[in-house]
Formats: sequence, structure tokens, C-alpha cells
Amino acid sequence: MEVTRTNFKDSLSTVYSAIEEADFLAIDGEFSGISDGPNVSALTNGLDTPEERYMKLKKHSMDFLLFQFGLCTFTYDQAESKYVIKTFNFYIFPKPFNRTSPDTKFICQSSSIDFLASQGFDFNKVFRHGIPYLNQEEEVQLREQYEERRSQSNGSGNPSYISPNSNKGPGSIPEEHREYIGRVDNVDLLSYRFPKGLHVETLETEKKERYIQISKVDDEERKRRERQKQEREQEELNDAVGFSRVIHAISKSGKLVVGHNMLLDVMHTIHQFYCVLPEYLLYCFLRLLDTKLMATTQPFKELINITSLAELQKQLKESPFKSPKVVTAEGFPSYDTAQEQLHEAGYDAFITGLCFISMANYLGTAFYTVCMKRYNATLTSRVFARLFLMRIIDIPYLNISGPDLQPKRDHVLYVTFPKEWKTSDLYQLFSAFGNIQVSWIDDTSAFVSLSQTDQVQIAMNTSRYAESYRIQTYAEYVQGRQQVRESQGHSTQSWDEDGWVKPHYTSPSTVGAGPTGYSYGHNRYTPFTL
Amino acid sequence: MEVTRTNFKDSLSTVYSAIEEADFLAIDGEFSGISDGPNVSALTNGLDTPEERYMKLKKHSMDFLLFQFGLCTFTYDQAESKYVIKTFNFYIFPKPFNRTSPDTKFICQSSSIDFLASQGFDFNKVFRHGIPYLNQEEEVQLREQYEERRSQSNGSGNPSYISPNSNKGPGSIPEEHREYIGRVDNVDLLSYRFPKGLHVETLETEKKERYIQISKVDDEERKRRERQKQEREQEELNDAVGFSRVIHAISKSGKLVVGHNMLLDVMHTIHQFYCVLPEYLLYCFLRLLDTKLMATTQPFKELINITSLAELQKQLKESPFKSPKVVTAEGFPSYDTAQEQLHEAGYDAFITGLCFISMANYLGTAFYTVCMKRYNATLTSRVFARLFLMRIIDIPYLNISGPDLQPKRDHVLYVTFPKEWKTSDLYQLFSAFGNIQVSWIDDTSAFVSLSQTDQVQIAMNTSRYAESYRIQTYAEYVQGRQQVRESQGHSTQSWDEDGWVKPHYTSPSTVGAGPTGYSYGHNRYTPFTL
Repeated sequence: MEVTRTNFKDSLSTVYSAIEEADFLAIDGEFSGISDGPNVSALTNGLDTPEERYMKLKKHSMDFLLFQFGLCTFTYDQAESKYVIKTFNFYIFPKPFNRTSPDTKFICQSSSIDFLASQGFDFNKVFRHGIPYLNQEEEVQLREQYEERRSQSNGSGNPSYISPNSNKGPGSIPEEHREYIGRVDNVDLLSYRFPKGLHVETLETEKKERYIQISKVDDEERKRRERQKQEREQEELNDAVGFSRVIHAISKSGKLVVGHNMLLDVMHTIHQFYCVLPEYLLYCFLRLLDTKLMATTQPFKELINITSLAELQKQLKESPFKSPKVVTAEGFPSYDTAQEQLHEAGYDAFITGLCFISMANYLGTAFYTVCMKRYNATLTSRVFARLFLMRIIDIPYLNISGPDLQPKRDHVLYVTFPKEWKTSDLYQLFSAFGNIQVSWIDDTSAFVSLSQTDQVQIAMNTSRYAESYRIQTYAEYVQGRQQVRESQGHSTQSWDEDGWVKPHYTSPSTVGAGPTGYSYGHNRYTPFTL
Repeated sequence: MEVTRTNFKDSLSTVYSAIEEADFLAIDGEFSGISDGPNVSALTNGLDTPEERYMKLKKHSMDFLLFQFGLCTFTYDQAESKYVIKTFNFYIFPKPFNRTSPDTKFICQSSSIDFLASQGFDFNKVFRHGIPYLNQEEEVQLREQYEERRSQSNGSGNPSYISPNSNKGPGSIPEEHREYIGRVDNVDLLSYRFPKGLHVETLETEKKERYIQISKVDDEERKRRERQKQEREQEELNDAVGFSRVIHAISKSGKLVVGHNMLLDVMHTIHQFYCVLPEYLLYCFLRLLDTKLMATTQPFKELINITSLAELQKQLKESPFKSPKVVTAEGFPSYDTAQEQLHEAGYDAFITGLCFISMANYLGTAFYTVCMKRYNATLTSRVFARLFLMRIIDIPYLNISGPDLQPKRDHVLYVTFPKEWKTSDLYQLFSAFGNIQVSWIDDTSAFVSLSQTDQVQIAMNTSRYAESYRIQTYAEYVQGRQQVRESQGHSTQSWDEDGWVKPHYTSPSTVGAGPTGYSYGHNRYTPFTL
């Protein structure tokens, strides 16, 4: 079902009941771009910590716009052993709500736009009919604006003059009005009372010219008009909050939310529809499960070769997996997996849900029970709240319910050298120590991974008297960086004002608190267990 | 005529001949946004210098995309005393050309996008079928890439390996190939010669998988294939340069280019299709005339009230002006000014041209002659190269062919004060000195314009012992800022490597070199004369 600004209000009850009756939800987002600045994974070539990756995405990817949000609700019909699905394709656009509302700017990345264009993506639908939204802070501000206006009213309407939040910040008052507002500041305009029995209202002509209408009314009529006005204001407020209401409903439902490689989707969802992203994403208002992480973890890791969504879905049709029986709810347009409609958010959400069911079924009843029932939040977040990290070579996920994995990087050296050096110079330098892998950091430094950890000390000894280059162990490098950050005043403060994040405890001293059985180089990731 | 990627190549000769035969050209651009950061004119409330305004636009507006370019060519038919017009609407989009081409990012401003959407702007046409472009630097790089590849070829084809510009800069080589390329760097792969009589070519399957085809051919066939290949490469290069070729043609034609409030159009045109904007826009490769500036200057200033394009066009239909006789060239769709299609770039260019003709006719034959004939560049630029500056209260234009006007700002004071102060405090402080105008700079400073210059010294004297605030004359303020900039190493270096800009000579010592008869407060702007 396609939802735009045009039919959003009428569709909302359908959306709410679909969420309410669902056993789980699948989501997907389409963005105006993926990464601003240098390739997020390029610089350290897969040696980011989860925290660093999160910070990079926060810094370089949040200025893009999530402009299509796909939601597919899955409800199990026990009697017929089938899933009934409802798919929604929401088009999103931050249309300025009124004169004073924020004029959002967002970045477009040509390659992303070109890719979506080649898939037939309808940009006109986004920009002409996209549903607006507000984050919580903007919603509160707007509500306060309405309340302030109401309290300034003398009970018989409200004067056209609205006190601005700030009467001097540059830009907050249109230039041409500033002098006027400066002058009236001292005049107690607002305490001026219109005589009782007069109804005063600011109205707008079709040409957006504002005028004041003063009419003589009796007390009852006045109250009726007031009520009408308040209802209208409440509706305006709801319209402005717009798509964020759907996210609030998902969050309140406590339902499991499934996505494929969903870190960016989750970050954008929080950023656009909730609030400024916290410094660390350690706890989230959604119960999340990432099918890409699931597919790259035991036992699926051995059974599945390619984990891109389209390929995963194909492989999960074949033995030992089974496609679930799925029917589209009446009144909803159905998708045919044979006619791929990839990169339409609703379709992607749909097949993400299919992938999840196939993998969940493979794991058996116990898993199914966990997934389908509402759960104690602590347990749930332990099981689910791990998001797949693309292209980090030895940490598969960002753990948003506990400390991140601390990979063993004993075999990694941090090397600094003159800027004339090339990869070949590094190969030559380390030629005595077996195979190496070079990960460039910048012009004068790189990580060099040795294949044998016992060579590390020898390499360190060799470099002791070197003048043109310098070698540190990975541990020394991390410690040095930590000191630099602390001297710059970066504390490890947690961001938990509204209960979103838990205290930050990924300091080096908590190594070992993470899952056990995890070490680099042997591919022994923690299996995806309960 | 609508021009997209689909019909661009076929339309190019039509565009070229329209430019070649025209008496003058009118242009207009549509952008994805107007201003990034705070409102460009808000901070100093109309007291920017032209240089400051240019720098602000350069900093805050060039990250938007010019995605529709309107060109309307006007050719005078002396026999029938009418203009024959040809209108082109070009859709522009920086579609990445190949794997190594730049992945342009651009900003969208919601209010601008929403406005264009409400006018029926077709974003799908831009993003799906927009014409690509390269600036001169990118064109040179691409040409060098082709030449390098050709010189590496042994005359019987070229190996698939292409030397990257840099073999170590982060991001320039896809991660997964970096190790490989690092290794082969020392192997003289490129000097490897295929035996004569073998033709080696890298081809791509429909699925974009690349493979090498080796075939046995005789000498003649080999030469034929080589020629074909070079022609193909030249065509690819032309395709990549794309829309910039139209701008090159306009530039080369030397024809007068008319625009309405065209500063941003000109800056975007240079930025996207030519090169990084120079530090000062003192000379431009186009002969420019700004109809908004013309309409706000004598003698039109007294005759025309509103100078927005649509209103101007309406007023220029009425006495004492006359609408020119205009016909659309055969084969071109015609615009009807009764059915306004404002904010389609082609239509806006069209009516800008109409406005220009009406005003030019009003001025009479001498003006007409100057406009229509190709002219000595020095004279021309003196006459035309002034672009309208929106919202600067006392300097109407940016002079790109000489020193900017130096307004008399003797009546302006620069005041600093505690951040608790409001406009009313400033009114109170200066209450003894007649009417004032306050232009906020930031929380603790503002310009205060007195209505009488003779009050300035008295105000200065009064403040001598004040502790909570401080007053400087505008001249002192400018001098102080100049010193700060110089201490930060901002020189007044000129940017004239390719002959675009003339030496920068707007230093305070050249005041007086500008047009005479100019002083603030009497609205005696230099009339728009020859």
C-alpha cells in the first residue's frame, strides 16, 4: 500500500491496526545517499572499532534523507500455517510546515540517486507528496508555540501577534519585521484585552495575506469557536508530526523489528523521527534483529555464500531451507518475488521478513518462541540488539545491549613512515615476517597485519634503531589515541536523558566481559544462539 | 525545446546554430536550494560589502545543484521588425560517468524543493534523464586518463590494467583491489608486449563483467580497430563533458547574456561547468547584463515599482513601455505569457529577454547598438558586468569589471555590548540621537545607523567612559577587521591563472576610482548609462 501526504491521515488507522495485530515487523529505508566524505570503511580498511564505525556513520551519513520507508507486518495464522502480510510504502519529505518551521537541508549523492533512478524510483512522489515529520524536540517546540499562543489569548480569541521564541537571535525574525518587533517589545501589547463579546481571529486569504477578523458573538458561540480552534490546532500538530507517529506506534508496540543490514536504517530512523543521535548507540527503543548478521553467523555462515538481500532470499528458497507460506491481506497489493522489485522499500522489507522466517524456522521451535512472543526487554536486547557492521574484518556486529567485542589484534602493527613510502616499501620492510596485509590510514601511517603473531616481537626489535619509520603494537596505538582523546576533553559520558542509552562501558578494562570463545583469525564468532 | 540525456547529442547542432545566429541570449537556472547556513543577508542586515556577499554565496550556496538551465536565443528580423526566439530547457544531473568518475554530492533545501514541486517541476526528469557535465579540470583529467591508456597500449590494443592517478591515496583504489595493486606496482606489467598480430581488447558483458578478448588479426584490420577505438573514446569524452559544451559555446560566441537577478546563476554556471570559483569575481568569461539591476537603476527606478521577474514583465507591457513583437522559431514549442509557466528555466529566460528588449527599446537606438553588436571587451564589461546584489541596502551591484562602489557609511556605528541586551536597550541608549536603525551582527554586537551623520561624534564622545558597551565608527570597524584578516594570512592575492580575473584592486586606497556622484542616503545611484 502506497502512503503519501495525500492519503496518510486516512491510512493511519490501517497502519496502526496492522502493527497491533502483527507477530513481527520488517522494515527497510531508501536514502538520498550513503556516505558523505571519504568511504566510511576505506581509511582503516576494516579495522574500525564498532564505536568508531558508529561515530563515522553519525558524522558522515546523517545528512542524507531517508525518503522512503518500507514496513511489512507479518501475522501468523496458526490454523492455516501461513503468514498474512501487509506492506506499506511510505514516501517521506520534510515539507516546511509553516513560516517558522525548520527548513531542512539534506545531501544527495549522485551515485545513490542515479541507482534509485535506474530502478524506477519515483522522486516526484517523494518531493510532491512526501509525508512530513518532526522529531520529538521539534514536536515539543511546536506544542509550546500553540500553548503560548493560547495562554496569550484572552479567552475570546487570540491577537495576531505571536511572541517569537527569541526576539534577537539573527534569522529568527524576518529582517523587515525586526525593527517593529524591537519597538513593540516594551509595549505590553499582549496584556491588551479585547472587550468581552468580541471574537478576534487571524485569518489568511487564499493569497496567504493575513488579516484580523473581529466579530460580535454571544458567550456560547464564543466557546464553540474556541473549541473548534483548539481541535484545528491539535490536528495541525498531528499533521506536522506526520510520519513520526508511525515510528512511535512501532516503538510502543514492543514488536520485534527485522531489517537487513539495518544499522543505517535504524540510525536514520532515530535521527529523523526521534532525536539527535546519542554519542553511543548502546540501547535502542526498538527490538531489533538484523538478518544480514544472522546469515553471517553460525549455523547459517556455513550454509549461505552471499548475504546480499536478493541473493539471501534466493538461497533461502532452496534446501535445507524452506520458503514460508505467505498470503497478502485483502485490500493490499501483493508482491511477486519472481518479479523482483528490489530497492522499493516495501518490497525489501517484505523479503527481509521472508528471509527471517526461513532462518527462524531452520533454528526450530525454541527460536520461534523467542521471536514471536513479547519478551522481557533485557533478555530481548541481549539476543537481538546487534547490528551488522559492513566491512569490519574481525568484529561482525555493533552490540547495542552490552560491551562491544574486543577483537584480538595482537598481530597488528601500527607503522609510521615518510610520505614517499608506497605499499611496496612496506612489503619490502616486512618481507622477513611472512605474509602481511597493509591497511592504509593516511599518507604516513598504516596498519600492518602479520600472519604470525610470534613475529610481532621480532619485528618490533628490528625497528628499534630505525630512523625513517616507527612501529607500535596495536595496543600501544589504541592507548596513545585514548590519551589524545582524553587530553582533548572527550569524556566517556553516557547519553541517557530519556532512557535511550545505557552507561557507556566499553572501556578497555571491560575486555573479557564480552562473549567468550572469540578470537581473531579462526573465524570462531559467537554463534547466533539464545 | 526540452533537452535531456536522451536527445542531447541529437540536439547539440540545433543549440549551436541557435547561439551562433542570435543577437543576444537570455538564461535562467533552477537550483536545489538557495542558501546553506544562516540567511545570507540576515547577519549584517544589508551591510555586506559586495566582496563579502560574493564570499558568502561562494561559501554557502555552491553546494546546491543547478539542475535546470534555461536558454532563450533572440534573433532580430529587421525586415519584419520582430524577434525570432528559440527556447531550450536543459535538465542537468551529474550522473557518474564510470567507476572512477567523481561521485558528486549536492544539498537540497526543503523549501526550495517544495516550491519547485508546487510549480510542477519534474524531478524524475532531472534524476533519470539529466545531462551530465564536467568542469574543465575534470575534463583535462579524463582526457589524460585516455591518453595515458593509449600510450601504454602497444599498438595492438591495450591491457585492462589502467594505472590509477595515485596508488596510495585513501579511497582512490577500491579496498578489495588495493593489496593486489600494491603488489603489482613493482612488476612492470605495463611494458609487457603482446606479440604482433594479436588484438587485445577489454570488453564488458551486459552484466558489466569485464573480460579480455584476444583475436588474431592482420595489420590493416588492427589499424581499423584502433581508429574505431579512438573515435569511440573521443565520443565517450564528449558525452562526459556533456552540458558544459553548451556553456563553452555561449562563452565562445561572445554574445550578450541577459539574466534576471543573475548573480547566483552566473556563480553556479562557473562553478559547475567551468571551475572552482575564484576568490574574487572581477572578470567573467561571459558578457552579462542583469535586468533586475537595470530595472532598479535610473531611469527605470522611477517608472517601475516591483522588480521581481513576473511583476517586471507585467509592468513592461504597459505605457510608457511596449511589448516587443516576438515569434517562436519553427519547430520550437512556444510559450504563452498569458499562461505563466514561471520557474521553468526556459520560460523565465524567455521573459527575461522580453524585459530586456522593452527596457532597451525605451532607452533608444544608442543602447540598442551597444547591446546588439559585439564589442570591445573592456568597454563591454564596464557597461554590463554588474550583477544585482539582493538586499544590500546601499550598494546595488557587484562590479565584475572594476572596483566595487564604496558606500559612505559615516553614519554607521559598530556597537558591542553584553549578550543580555535587546533591541530596546539599543533604542534607549541612542534615544538622544534621533531615529536609528539596528542591524544585528551577533549576540553581542550590532550596527547602529544614525539618521544624522553629525550625531556620530557626539555619540562617540558619550560612550567614552562607558564600561558595559563600546562604540566604534564603521571605518574603525572595517580597519580592525582588515587587520585581523591580514594577521590570519588572508592576502589580497588575485586569481588570474587562466585569465578569468583581473588583479584585485578594491583596497581602501582605490576609493574614488569608482563612479562618482555616489553617496549614501540620497539614492543617487550611478544611472545605467553608456
